[in-house]
This record gives sequence, C-alpha cells and structure tokens, in this order.
Amino acid sequence: MTIAMTPSPPYYAAIFSAQRNDGDHGYDEMAARMVELAATMPGYLGIESARDEKGFGITVSYWESEEAIANWKRNVEHLQAQRRGRGEWYKEYNVRVAKVERAYELKK
Amino acid sequence: MTIAMTPSPPYYAAIFSAQRNDGDHGYDEMAARMVELAATMPGYLGIESARDEKGFGITVSYWESEEAIANWKRNVEHLQAQRRGRGEWYKEYNVRVAKVERAYELKK
Repeated sequence: MTIAMTPSPPYYAAIFSAQRNDGDHGYDEMAARMVELAATMPGYLGIESARDEKGFGITVSYWESEEAIANWKRNVEHLQAQRRGRGEWYKEYNVRVAKVERAYELKK
Repeated sequence: MTIAMTPSPPYYAAIFSAQRNDGDHGYDEMAARMVELAATMPGYLGIESARDEKGFGITVSYWESEEAIANWKRNVEHLQAQRRGRGEWYKEYNVRVAKVERAYELKK
C-alpha cells in the first residue's frame, strides 16, 4: 500500500491492529473487497495497511467523522466480514477510533 | 510485533506511515533503539508496528497526552534518528497525532 492522501485535520482514524491465524481461508479476497467497498462509503478519506511476515498487521482507515466510521461498521457486507474475522481469520485484534488533530509529512 | 496493551481511552496515538528506501543503511538497529528508548519516556503506553515486503510500514505509538508525544519528538537521540530518517531512510512519510476516543478488542 501507500500513504493515504488525507485533507487537513481534523478528521477521524480507525486503527485496526490484528494478529492473523495461519492460512488464508479466503482472507485475501475478502480484505481486497473490503478496501474496495470502504472507498465507496460516505465520508471515506483513505486507507493504509501493512502486515509483516508473522501475520501481524495494522490497517488505518481515515474518515470525515465518527458517524462515517459508525456507518461503515454497520454496512451489511462489512458485518459479514467482521463475523468471519472473529471466527476464522484473527487470533486477536484491537480497534481504536481516534480524532486526528494534527499531521505533517515528508515528500521527496 | 504484537498488539499494545493500552488503558481505557482517552489517550493519544502517533500514527507514523512511511515508505522506506531500498537497503538498510543502519535502519534496523536505529529502529530497535527507538522502540527501546520510547518505552523509557514519560507518558509512554505502548507501540505497534508492521512493515510489508515492499517497505511500506505503519508504526503507531500510544501516549498519555499530547505533551508526552511532543516531549518524545524533542528527545535528542530521537531528533538524530528523525534527521537520518529524512535524509537516508524514508522516501516519504506521514505523521498524524490523534486522540483515541474509544476502543474495543477481540481476544481468544
């Protein structure tokens, strides 16, 4: 992935940190679909994701408001993915919803 | 890495997303030292980090307050690392400082 092009703060971030189980079990396909689907949701600003070789990953999605995050969490297709995530894909995870107050960047 | 054990919100997160250059150039050693050093700073709560095979990584450090983050940013050894980061290690990066307002988790 690459760095998300987000507007000036304030905006919101959903920080999803997770340890995967072994094996794919349809995960890659669903993850790609969720990235695609999130981008169609109201208030979506961008997404960043990285996973290491041991299956520990961080995905941060950026949103205009808390309501936009709550709306994404309730999306029917996303709810199905969340259910499979709990049951099949993740050993543990943490979701943190945060208000981005300031930001700075380096570009070359 | 693993999921950081953080207290109940509110607390702060520094979300660091970066694209590395090719080659190590002393990066791994310095990154390990910064993780070690951050943990000694006042107001430190935890850190999570993941990097993919293309050198795109996300590191989220958690702190009790904005002041704790500002204090960490000013640490002399960290300032040296930041300078080398800009000059040698990173093609681009983004730092976002955010207030974590709510959190939930799955543990098995």
